[in-house]
Amino acid sequence: MTKQATVLSESQTADAMLRARARRVVPGGMWGHLNAARLPEGYPQFFASAEGCRVRDVDGREYIDFMCSWGPVLLGHRHPEVEAAARAQADLGDCLNGPGEVMVDLAEDFVAMVPHADWAMFQKNGADATTTCVTIARAGTGRRKVLVARGSYHGALPWCSPSVAGVTAEDRAHLIHFDYNDVASLRAAVDQAGNDLAAILVTAFRHDMARDLELPAAEFAAAVRSACDQTGAALVIDEVRAGLRLDIRGSWETLGVRPDFSAWSKAIANGYALAAVTGNDRFREAATKVFVTGSFWCGAVAMAAARATLRIARETDVPAHLGAMGLRLREGMAALADRHGVAIRQSGPPQMPLILFEGDPEFRKGRAFCSAALHHGAFFHPQHNMFLSAAHGPADIDAALESASHGFQAVAGLDARKARE
Amino acid sequence: MTKQATVLSESQTADAMLRARARRVVPGGMWGHLNAARLPEGYPQFFASAEGCRVRDVDGREYIDFMCSWGPVLLGHRHPEVEAAARAQADLGDCLNGPGEVMVDLAEDFVAMVPHADWAMFQKNGADATTTCVTIARAGTGRRKVLVARGSYHGALPWCSPSVAGVTAEDRAHLIHFDYNDVASLRAAVDQAGNDLAAILVTAFRHDMARDLELPAAEFAAAVRSACDQTGAALVIDEVRAGLRLDIRGSWETLGVRPDFSAWSKAIANGYALAAVTGNDRFREAATKVFVTGSFWCGAVAMAAARATLRIARETDVPAHLGAMGLRLREGMAALADRHGVAIRQSGPPQMPLILFEGDPEFRKGRAFCSAALHHGAFFHPQHNMFLSAAHGPADIDAALESASHGFQAVAGLDARKARE
Repeated sequence: MTKQATVLSESQTADAMLRARARRVVPGGMWGHLNAARLPEGYPQFFASAEGCRVRDVDGREYIDFMCSWGPVLLGHRHPEVEAAARAQADLGDCLNGPGEVMVDLAEDFVAMVPHADWAMFQKNGADATTTCVTIARAGTGRRKVLVARGSYHGALPWCSPSVAGVTAEDRAHLIHFDYNDVASLRAAVDQAGNDLAAILVTAFRHDMARDLELPAAEFAAAVRSACDQTGAALVIDEVRAGLRLDIRGSWETLGVRPDFSAWSKAIANGYALAAVTGNDRFREAATKVFVTGSFWCGAVAMAAARATLRIARETDVPAHLGAMGLRLREGMAALADRHGVAIRQSGPPQMPLILFEGDPEFRKGRAFCSAALHHGAFFHPQHNMFLSAAHGPADIDAALESASHGFQAVAGLDARKARE
Repeated sequence: MTKQATVLSESQTADAMLRARARRVVPGGMWGHLNAARLPEGYPQFFASAEGCRVRDVDGREYIDFMCSWGPVLLGHRHPEVEAAARAQADLGDCLNGPGEVMVDLAEDFVAMVPHADWAMFQKNGADATTTCVTIARAGTGRRKVLVARGSYHGALPWCSPSVAGVTAEDRAHLIHFDYNDVASLRAAVDQAGNDLAAILVTAFRHDMARDLELPAAEFAAAVRSACDQTGAALVIDEVRAGLRLDIRGSWETLGVRPDFSAWSKAIANGYALAAVTGNDRFREAATKVFVTGSFWCGAVAMAAARATLRIARETDVPAHLGAMGLRLREGMAALADRHGVAIRQSGPPQMPLILFEGDPEFRKGRAFCSAALHHGAFFHPQHNMFLSAAHGPADIDAALESASHGFQAVAGLDARKARE
């Protein structure tokens, strides 16, 4: 059961006191995608603990978690088998003078699990993986241009960051943009690259923030593959956000389209810091030529956690479970919206849902919905795709829908107020 | 006591069998700085466990470790207090929907420990930290040029990688090079940057591979600071490799020179994956403008490990201990070299020593030395600076010197053979 949130005076909360301390020693109090300043009223910045599908903030308030740490938590927080595997490795060693046997095991696991993969390499950040793919593609093709969809997120390094602060034009000199799911714009971008096309980098589905999510159209996926085949460029699927949630073999496998590389991170070690690149034999030699590395990339504990995560994902068909729970959430949300006379749009794969409100260009309804639901124990996001985990069961979804009903009430109240004005 | 290495037929070893498996599923069998293909004969690729200053490979051979995982292990492998702090945090949660209280604690620790630091931010890789510094410096100054010393290592991202495979000219369009410790070349580079100079990025000391290490000359450090003061550029010290080993306040503190930013990683969490940027108030606002982030950057376990590591480094004066043990090693090596009639050059701070052999342009002597010493239980490196840890005591240094005596014997044998030819 979720604990009912208790109302505390804003300045008395542990969260508020930590924010005040943080403002002194961290620029703006927090940075990046975990900065709660962008979240609706009442959202905590600081968290104390988590278990299964529940997170607790530093004031002891507990929430059913639909962000899963923005993706990494696939099986539920502190999954016992993953924790046991990590601990057993930690008792031997983690960051050593070279990798452990577990690195070979894990590379074999990826090659066995992912049809396009002939080999794997490991990193720490999602952006390490996407950057490694681009670097190997350039080394292998001897070309420079990389096609990316307008608005797609591939990490926060200067070459791909959604912000331009501190970024130079040269950092992005060889990017060419197309529109996701738009074959004509893809072809125009391919033409623009001419004989200098190294790679097409594309997210598993369109999960840009603050707009309806889109699954890849079959003809779009086929056109991406065909453009790569015709030009000799590498097809790189950015699986950092979607990987393991939709299809453990790779998110485009059901479309019959296989990439040359996939970039993985987030969910592959259930919260332990790890990223991976899988690639095919066409780019094996190029992968031996580049110099990519990091001090902690061979840490054995995260790899042991990944092996356990991958095994459980395989054995229990995690994508199917997430899909079923996501559908239960989706259908429940639709029924609640209907009951409250509120118009919503639900998009994306059920495993990674987004709920937007009609007539809500500034996300006032979405934010009011989320604040009220949060107050009643469910942690949703108003603009970013959410994440299900294997720890979400039917009772958790139903409890979250109960929280959501308060959110719809709040939106109905906003609508009624607006109608009166 | 170190276990004597047992001679196994090359193909029978667990290491050889793992290498064969790895070649199938990892390009070239391994990548980056941990690729043992570059190491002398007999060096293992795969490691099983470690404790204190000793590492064990997958064949059960134990070595006194002078690489410390290439830097991260500052207090010794699996330091009990660090492990306990990490485990206590892991029992609550690691990668959550936001940071834990430990992030604020750790930022406060850095600000209290490092005189130039008014704030801190955290990442995963050393290159995340150097890239973040450069990005903030560019955002804060509105300029683009970054000065770096020829041959200095700042990470393996395209803008700073020592390799050009898969890298475009534009990735480095705004770098200008100078020679470390060469004030005239620094001034020429500053002139070349003109009014577009954003930052001077400089390693704590000159630790380029395969050449004598150099401490920063006082007049060089002063010239770097003065160039930044005159132009408004940011002075960024890359402490990724040296941080906490020479001076916990920052490696240039004894020179009386303080940077605007320091980039930290490797040793700050005793092997847990973490990096940090410390900066001053001049760049606080710029730091709030950039978008830098990563899925695991707020992992609380690595931060708890870092807090314990920093506390122990402060309370036990780790740099002084490493210095004393490094001197013991240096003096012992000098005496052994003398006894064996072998001419060596020892360079760098004693905490991070390098031993090169006279008349050894292809490192044949260095490699023969290392192979023989390894065979007798000491893990040295022939070309890269080595690392001491707080777990190295006098008896460990003396045991390593006993191993080293076999190395000197091997070099003396090479010399004698050459004299006969």
